[in-house]
Amino acid sequence: MLTYTFSSTDSEPLYGQLYRFMKEDIVTGVLTADEKLPSKRSFAKNLGISTITVENAYAQLIAEGYVYSLPKRGFFVTDIRNALLIQRERGGRKKEREQAPPKKYTADFTSNQTCQEQFPFSIWAKLMRAVLKEDREGLMVNAPCAGIRPLREAIAGHLKDFRGMEVEPEQIIVGAGTEYLYGLLLQLLGFEKCYGVEDPGYHKIYSIYRSHRVPCSYVEMDGAGVRIPSLVEKNVDVVHISPSHHFPTGIVMPVSRRYELLGWAAGKEGRYIIEDDYDSEFRLTGKPIPSLQSIDVQEKVIYMNTFTKTLSSTVRISYMVLPEHLAKEFSERLNFYSCTVSNFEQYVLARFIGEGYFEKHINRMRNYYHDKRDELLKQIENSRLSDCCSISEEDAGLHFLLNVDTALSDRELCETLEKEGIRISSVAQYYAGNREGKEHIFVMNYSSLKEKSMERVIRCMERVLKV
Amino acid sequence: MLTYTFSSTDSEPLYGQLYRFMKEDIVTGVLTADEKLPSKRSFAKNLGISTITVENAYAQLIAEGYVYSLPKRGFFVTDIRNALLIQRERGGRKKEREQAPPKKYTADFTSNQTCQEQFPFSIWAKLMRAVLKEDREGLMVNAPCAGIRPLREAIAGHLKDFRGMEVEPEQIIVGAGTEYLYGLLLQLLGFEKCYGVEDPGYHKIYSIYRSHRVPCSYVEMDGAGVRIPSLVEKNVDVVHISPSHHFPTGIVMPVSRRYELLGWAAGKEGRYIIEDDYDSEFRLTGKPIPSLQSIDVQEKVIYMNTFTKTLSSTVRISYMVLPEHLAKEFSERLNFYSCTVSNFEQYVLARFIGEGYFEKHINRMRNYYHDKRDELLKQIENSRLSDCCSISEEDAGLHFLLNVDTALSDRELCETLEKEGIRISSVAQYYAGNREGKEHIFVMNYSSLKEKSMERVIRCMERVLKV
Repeated sequence: MLTYTFSSTDSEPLYGQLYRFMKEDIVTGVLTADEKLPSKRSFAKNLGISTITVENAYAQLIAEGYVYSLPKRGFFVTDIRNALLIQRERGGRKKEREQAPPKKYTADFTSNQTCQEQFPFSIWAKLMRAVLKEDREGLMVNAPCAGIRPLREAIAGHLKDFRGMEVEPEQIIVGAGTEYLYGLLLQLLGFEKCYGVEDPGYHKIYSIYRSHRVPCSYVEMDGAGVRIPSLVEKNVDVVHISPSHHFPTGIVMPVSRRYELLGWAAGKEGRYIIEDDYDSEFRLTGKPIPSLQSIDVQEKVIYMNTFTKTLSSTVRISYMVLPEHLAKEFSERLNFYSCTVSNFEQYVLARFIGEGYFEKHINRMRNYYHDKRDELLKQIENSRLSDCCSISEEDAGLHFLLNVDTALSDRELCETLEKEGIRISSVAQYYAGNREGKEHIFVMNYSSLKEKSMERVIRCMERVLKV
Repeated sequence: MLTYTFSSTDSEPLYGQLYRFMKEDIVTGVLTADEKLPSKRSFAKNLGISTITVENAYAQLIAEGYVYSLPKRGFFVTDIRNALLIQRERGGRKKEREQAPPKKYTADFTSNQTCQEQFPFSIWAKLMRAVLKEDREGLMVNAPCAGIRPLREAIAGHLKDFRGMEVEPEQIIVGAGTEYLYGLLLQLLGFEKCYGVEDPGYHKIYSIYRSHRVPCSYVEMDGAGVRIPSLVEKNVDVVHISPSHHFPTGIVMPVSRRYELLGWAAGKEGRYIIEDDYDSEFRLTGKPIPSLQSIDVQEKVIYMNTFTKTLSSTVRISYMVLPEHLAKEFSERLNFYSCTVSNFEQYVLARFIGEGYFEKHINRMRNYYHDKRDELLKQIENSRLSDCCSISEEDAGLHFLLNVDTALSDRELCETLEKEGIRISSVAQYYAGNREGKEHIFVMNYSSLKEKSMERVIRCMERVLKV
């Protein structure tokens, strides 16, 4: 009869050792296909262990398919020879593939990362404690696909107060980032539709659509925003725009173009406008520009916004506001999805907005960015850079444009600065099509810039630009 | 000249009031298209306000496109008549659409919701404080698409200790729920591939594939899992399985079928197996079943698991382990995405796993579920239900099957129980194809069942089944 020697010093239980020995023998062919195994009782006696131990080992071998049992006949070895033929040795795998740590820059004008010091840590921690204490039951109940009701109500309230938008909590869908929400929108609006993306614009939006294999076109812009004839010519069904503040040009879409766009959307069933209102909170001069959603009466505008800009780029909570008929369709067709934001963060954010902290935070951040912008512009103005640089589109969002009079090509300038620890992108980079006449304009996103680095940055740029 | 009367009691600043008056006049046609507006200085004098105030109002009107300026000529009203034609009155929208609160059940055997009391609140809170204090810098740095390194290292360590899997952190992709990860996988593997889903199985998986408009087929199962001939016949490229514990049948795929499946995948380029290991932590008897991933040497298995089962269904963190060549492709092609899990939860979870709490928690939960299952089975055994019910597949995961000898149809039984506050689903419900011979088997997911409700549930079932 089969015999195995057990180790008494081994921390593994006896049944585990027996299972391991037998599996080894089956895999290596010591125990052959369809060989009958000893009965539990006699095997136990032979090994000097309890029947229960053998039973447990057999049960595990049966569960994994190494052994089969026949009623009243006993236990047999499974035929796994064919199966084993395709197994090769694992191993020899490269372990040494540590990623290089991301490069540290003195200033990164291409980053949308928020300043660590500006995150309201103590309030957030306070609200987390309150949620753990007071919302415990809700924390453990699965959220609806679109997000917990208190958060959607808080967002609706914020949109009313801050953007003058009248929306119902039912129209709001919360998700883990706008990129995730685009994925949901594709499923809602259809994979056969043609999606239009602004040129110039964020390449990422285009990449997301392409990655989902949907028809996707760049749409030309003029000084007022996307051109309607370009939408028509390219058979766009759904256009993705940021009318309050276009990136990178800084264009604010005038009201006439807004109505023209709404007219285009109303002209054909299935046309929609995705309004990305990503940094409307940071209009530094004047009042916020009313959203396109708020003048849409034909249910053609899908409004999107995110807390990654206002709170922290590492807090992954965004939302969209669907027109009523789409909200209804969403709840009928896509509500099988689980919400992608954990309840905990939803409850904390609901309190953060509902208890007025969000408004205070935005106001504080707007002042902070306003001061930072002013300081940076002042330092540029007072430096030798003023001989060759001019500023434009400085009133909105967290970037301005730097127009540079230089013999260097855009690429040369970017590369030279990068070597000096300054990362900067040119407006031309954001054009998919014709870049002619777009040279020598640079996007200065100052959100992550540290004040103490400003002087170094300017001295360095003077050096590179030889002024 | 234009004249407006300002309210001194209004909290709105003067420039805001002026902007509002003028916008109103432009929209209503009091100020007509291309009409010249007064110069800032004379307008200010006329209204008895400062030039700055007029300038701010004009700037806002220009920013929104209601007014345009011509160099050296002054300010003019934009022609928005065409635009206005399509605007109708908003309003009259239905406000009264409050959703009914979800129904409360005495017992919901269809729910995967975890028990609130079982969540390790105090440890979680302790780790949150530690993260806020010690990981503050990391919290504010954008995470790589696949998740923060410490979490991926912790998961790799867990997989090694708990599942005997040798994987590199680079192969691990963290995301906000497995549903989101499926979306990423479609983008990685292709929208033209045919995805196979187990029949019976979770309809949700099928819904997700359908919702992404990819070819998708149900694949027949026999007692060992999906049938290879069915995969071939239906031209499946990527098959989605849960070999450690199939839902709802409870089948554990034997090793011979595992190798057959790997052989099928190896037979053609582009074939893959998605191994959903969703509840392997809760095998209540014996050792965990080795994962398919751990015997895959051809880089054909994509392993998926989630913390929604082990921690809480409201913590939205899942992960997948990609074969090396797919991990490489992922990092080249899809790393433009932001990670969908907030840094904060990633850091807390990384500590939770890394500091040994996760292992303790799983052990505790396994005992908890083990006891709950035993108690429920004992109560059924000792009740009159034992006359007409038998139990099967009780060793794994968080559900067992209840085979009921009754004249009631499955639907009648489910509906009658539902009225009594007990929610239950039949195995037949999970079949897309032939349900013959699958009647009278019910899925008892007891994860959310409260012990104090057990007796009530059993008495009620006795009543309904008339035993």
